[in-house]
Amino acid sequence: MKRNFILILLIVLSVSSMKAQKATWIWYPGDYEIWLGNNMNNNRTERGAFFPPFWKMDSHYVLVEFSKKLNLFKPEEITIAVEGRYNVKLDGKLLFGAPKTLIIPEGKHSLNIKVHNQATVPAIYVSGKTIFSDQSWKVTYEDKEWIDESGKASDTSATTYMDAASWNFNDPSQLPSQFKLHTEPANAVSSTPQTQGVLVDFGKETFGYIKLEQLKGNGKVNIFYGESKEEAMSTGSCETLDRFEVNNAEAKDYTVQGSKAFRYVYIVTDPGVSFAKASMLYESLPETYRGSFRCSDPEINKIWDVAAYTMHLTTREFFIDGIKRDRWVWSGDAIQSYLMNYYLFFDSHTVGRTINLLRGKDPVTSHINTIMDYTFYWFLSVYDYYLYTGDRHLIEQLYPKMATMMDYVLGRTNKDGMVEGMTGDWVFVDWADGYMDKHGELSFEQILFCKSLETMAVCADLTGNKEDKAKYDKLATSLKSKLEPAFWNNEKQGFVHNRLNGKQSEQVTRYANMFGILFDYLNNQKKQAVKKSVILNNSIMKISTPYMRFYELESLCALGEQTNVTKEIKDYWGGMLKLGATSFWEKYNPEDKGSKHYEMYGRPFGKSLCHAWGSSPIYLLGKYYLGVKPLKPGYSEFAINPSLGGLKWIEGTVPTPKGGVHVYMDKKTIKVKAGEGRGYLTFKSKSKPKASTGVVEKLSNDEYRILIEGNNAEVTVNYRN
Amino acid sequence: MKRNFILILLIVLSVSSMKAQKATWIWYPGDYEIWLGNNMNNNRTERGAFFPPFWKMDSHYVLVEFSKKLNLFKPEEITIAVEGRYNVKLDGKLLFGAPKTLIIPEGKHSLNIKVHNQATVPAIYVSGKTIFSDQSWKVTYEDKEWIDESGKASDTSATTYMDAASWNFNDPSQLPSQFKLHTEPANAVSSTPQTQGVLVDFGKETFGYIKLEQLKGNGKVNIFYGESKEEAMSTGSCETLDRFEVNNAEAKDYTVQGSKAFRYVYIVTDPGVSFAKASMLYESLPETYRGSFRCSDPEINKIWDVAAYTMHLTTREFFIDGIKRDRWVWSGDAIQSYLMNYYLFFDSHTVGRTINLLRGKDPVTSHINTIMDYTFYWFLSVYDYYLYTGDRHLIEQLYPKMATMMDYVLGRTNKDGMVEGMTGDWVFVDWADGYMDKHGELSFEQILFCKSLETMAVCADLTGNKEDKAKYDKLATSLKSKLEPAFWNNEKQGFVHNRLNGKQSEQVTRYANMFGILFDYLNNQKKQAVKKSVILNNSIMKISTPYMRFYELESLCALGEQTNVTKEIKDYWGGMLKLGATSFWEKYNPEDKGSKHYEMYGRPFGKSLCHAWGSSPIYLLGKYYLGVKPLKPGYSEFAINPSLGGLKWIEGTVPTPKGGVHVYMDKKTIKVKAGEGRGYLTFKSKSKPKASTGVVEKLSNDEYRILIEGNNAEVTVNYRN
Repeated sequence: MKRNFILILLIVLSVSSMKAQKATWIWYPGDYEIWLGNNMNNNRTERGAFFPPFWKMDSHYVLVEFSKKLNLFKPEEITIAVEGRYNVKLDGKLLFGAPKTLIIPEGKHSLNIKVHNQATVPAIYVSGKTIFSDQSWKVTYEDKEWIDESGKASDTSATTYMDAASWNFNDPSQLPSQFKLHTEPANAVSSTPQTQGVLVDFGKETFGYIKLEQLKGNGKVNIFYGESKEEAMSTGSCETLDRFEVNNAEAKDYTVQGSKAFRYVYIVTDPGVSFAKASMLYESLPETYRGSFRCSDPEINKIWDVAAYTMHLTTREFFIDGIKRDRWVWSGDAIQSYLMNYYLFFDSHTVGRTINLLRGKDPVTSHINTIMDYTFYWFLSVYDYYLYTGDRHLIEQLYPKMATMMDYVLGRTNKDGMVEGMTGDWVFVDWADGYMDKHGELSFEQILFCKSLETMAVCADLTGNKEDKAKYDKLATSLKSKLEPAFWNNEKQGFVHNRLNGKQSEQVTRYANMFGILFDYLNNQKKQAVKKSVILNNSIMKISTPYMRFYELESLCALGEQTNVTKEIKDYWGGMLKLGATSFWEKYNPEDKGSKHYEMYGRPFGKSLCHAWGSSPIYLLGKYYLGVKPLKPGYSEFAINPSLGGLKWIEGTVPTPKGGVHVYMDKKTIKVKAGEGRGYLTFKSKSKPKASTGVVEKLSNDEYRILIEGNNAEVTVNYRN
Repeated sequence: MKRNFILILLIVLSVSSMKAQKATWIWYPGDYEIWLGNNMNNNRTERGAFFPPFWKMDSHYVLVEFSKKLNLFKPEEITIAVEGRYNVKLDGKLLFGAPKTLIIPEGKHSLNIKVHNQATVPAIYVSGKTIFSDQSWKVTYEDKEWIDESGKASDTSATTYMDAASWNFNDPSQLPSQFKLHTEPANAVSSTPQTQGVLVDFGKETFGYIKLEQLKGNGKVNIFYGESKEEAMSTGSCETLDRFEVNNAEAKDYTVQGSKAFRYVYIVTDPGVSFAKASMLYESLPETYRGSFRCSDPEINKIWDVAAYTMHLTTREFFIDGIKRDRWVWSGDAIQSYLMNYYLFFDSHTVGRTINLLRGKDPVTSHINTIMDYTFYWFLSVYDYYLYTGDRHLIEQLYPKMATMMDYVLGRTNKDGMVEGMTGDWVFVDWADGYMDKHGELSFEQILFCKSLETMAVCADLTGNKEDKAKYDKLATSLKSKLEPAFWNNEKQGFVHNRLNGKQSEQVTRYANMFGILFDYLNNQKKQAVKKSVILNNSIMKISTPYMRFYELESLCALGEQTNVTKEIKDYWGGMLKLGATSFWEKYNPEDKGSKHYEMYGRPFGKSLCHAWGSSPIYLLGKYYLGVKPLKPGYSEFAINPSLGGLKWIEGTVPTPKGGVHVYMDKKTIKVKAGEGRGYLTFKSKSKPKASTGVVEKLSNDEYRILIEGNNAEVTVNYRN
């Protein structure tokens, strides 16, 4: 009687868990990302030619074994869907053929499915009443299961099992290899005949497949794409184009093969060819805009909107740099996309995918994207991911590959333990409108290297690798102690750009100085000195990429210079808007004129007019105006330090893993509401503030704080600005 | 006038070289081997289930750039065929689309073709009047060609370029990805109705696709394969089988999907299904039998023929172990196939392919095939390849991967610099009919390890890596000096099997002792002692695999015991023939009875009756009876030391890269003819011998030699036996 009762209870539990559990396609961690990334990186074209990356492309493991330990209270039938050729073993016994269904008896069992697939990623989808393929399954690329002459299996296996990985392929018919971005039809806003063809304007920067409706006749069709009108009309210089032959006796719709970035297309056909109109299929990764920002300044609001649109256009299979020319995944660009994403979509899976793709596989043969700095940003991005999302699992899975990546870096240090560009290393730093020395020890690279070593120590600790933690701590401490002796210049009151053969150069650039502030590597006195002598000093070479403006403005925000930053945002991003930008650019120098704005890489339209790194206002406004950031992983503890930055009011939401923090601030009131975690709202007030609930603590002269619980209850604070 | 003359001369040269040169499909070295090997290793089935290897399968580089520097005296049109998506750059300029033909102007040019292919190996075929894709092209998986903001290309590239690799795909339509082995129809010798179905006998061990002619009706067909009649009739235990449904209103021929090994097939159909007869498509790699052997003993001749057939059956896309169950590439089996091959087909390309496949790619995550000894055999096989073929190029291309493989081994040595089985290492040695300890330091493994280190030193030297040579020399010398102190036992007059926690075990096995002789690690006195106390001592555990009999008999031959070996060959291989063998077996214990001979791995038909390692008489008879071996790479210098081994006469040819050495010997006469290289015929004679040409030199008491030039002139020597 008692036993029956327990059984019934267990069945009830099992039925209830059925609803929560769901099968999904699973694969070896990182493999789908590498495979999908190869496809995506190979979609780049340059004037009709295929244009793949110049770095090593890795491959998925072509032979993978999936396994799961089962404990069934009653027999259960499972169905098995597989991408690849496969076999199934139940309790070590190979079953006949490639079974699609299978009844597993009551009791404890081992289920193993081994899959070979060269062309696409080995993946399985298993579904029963209680058995589901999900991240609880184990995977390996080498099961090392030999037998001796008696048939006895090896008992000394050293196989490395990983947790299976998945995305959102939750139906057996939804094959991972068939993944496509979402598309929807969209129309042009105007179509203007030219001497030879027709110029079609889609009203703003967009991305997708051009569709020629009712295409008819016999002859050639040329489509010249442009992010600007000038580019589309420059048939000899536009960066992307399509050419094809048509032979349609009857009119029919035609959609071009490859998706592309454009606002304008200039379509020129042979005389015998005609079409009714040109439209498009807009292609995107569906995203929810969980973050928001509004303020009293309409120009800032417009900047936030265009930045969000720029982010959405560049958030695709992965976070890519730009949508026209590049269409590749770059680590330095990606870390900024991740940070903006945490304040806009909070799409963690796309961050994880991009981190995995960038790392690729061992052996490491070059820096990530061949760029030294980009390797360092990659390390930093892994910890950021953990801090924002609280997903420790990615770090655990990735840690061995973090270690081998760092081995590569450590194998390329000089006798002082510093990195210098060696043959084959691209020392990038930034695109600059002036000379920047890339030789010897760059202060900027050492600071990123030092932060990477600190990150390794933290991640080693998180994953329980005590020896590694000690090793990286030691390396980081040693390098950190060398930074000021090597690069600080008292006369210049800042870090010099580099040291060559032990001698400080004369040049001071902004890069190392910005990061010195951001990473808290400088004391307060030196931070203030740097602010004056470098950051706000117009004689230091200006930054003309939104990429490095990201860190420049962030370092100003970190020094409480939001009011200054508001002006900079309006000047710089507002400047692009005034030039008609509908998405933000790869590079913008306010001093350029006319079509000079489109030039880059020695090509008249080489510059990308939709570049992810152009979206930094999203990050700055979320983190330093709404003032919300995680203090502990996944926002279990957060900080809210709002700042008006000279605006009359600001309002918005910063997304967190399962909720969000909403902030409103004007010159008298702050309203805050948090959906999870807890943390302090900290602010300044010239008189004692009043809060609708909770206890206001005084911290210093005019600084106060109040604890905000993640219970979705709004707390209103009246304060004096 | 003068200039014209030179031009004409150059054109003539160019025309004449046209005939010699030929375009061929090219790819990244090792990649095609890995890809083809994955396909082949995945053809194994076990009772209808897919049965892939348990070790890591690597993948080809999916993105590869091919390049060639050109210097044309006049413009030339080339045609381009590619497996994959590609672009073409001429002098750094990307051409539109994916051109199939291209006119290259007069002068110096760089031609680059970059190819992406996930499913099959990126490969190109380029052909013009003077331009041909061949091994002179360079390939890389990472071209590291970045540009700065001005468009200037990087000038610090550290790209590793390799020479392109090829096989024999010499026509643009002959795609490497479409490779198939040769097939030809063959008939059964008998077809005998059984109670339920029909038993078809093909007369001897064979391999291919069963074809059911005039198959008709509706229902199931079961095909049970057997290397023996017993296996085919054991529908519940035969190792391989096919099951399929048929629904043919009209009779038509049906060929099964997968090729298999068998002599017998037992075909059982549902009552409604019928067929006229069963035949087969025999599948093989075409080979020329360049080596031959005949002698006065018909049984030995039969053994040589069956061994050659066994070798041919197991020489396929690669040298595989056995054709029924295993169908994988194993390093320990392969090194023996290579050696036999040098005395039979001299098919160097299949050796190179197999060596490349076994090595796979970095990172190294386990021993080759997970077996410690198999890693060592792999090193040895690379040097053997160079010695027999004289092809230094393979070693040059492979050396970096030899070094990383050895790094893996060195990372797993104990404090004495010796290897012990660590978790995940399969310490194989041999299948044995008795207990063999696999723990601690095995003398056998240290000897193979030591020889591997010596091989690394030689190969480092050959490839100009002086530091490496010194390092490996030192390691080898150190390990060699430890062998006798650790394992030699004076009382037992031989190497003991192993040492556990610093203590010699009591067991003596044959393995280390055989290799001590073969590698010349023992002095003459100890060799003779070992011969008596171990090799010819029946109380030492007997070897029951042809695999280790290979080395056992070779060590006896090396000690001049050919007459003894002749007896052993007749007993052991003759014993298999008496049991009806039509190919040689994986394991043969003369003491077994009846169907016990077919058992292995705890399964009644687990043993493979066609195993490459069963063919060693080919090697022994060629190297130690005809007595021909290379002394310098590619037989530029050779030795001929013929031995009758108790036979009345022997005759045969040993192939060399471009020729062969023919030897006839009876008790009075030796006739020798060589096609290339030069070397000494050395022999014993009780009186002063006479030679038809050349000078006979006396070496010692009754030993003489005469220099043989590789000019195909026969030299006849009269001597006294």
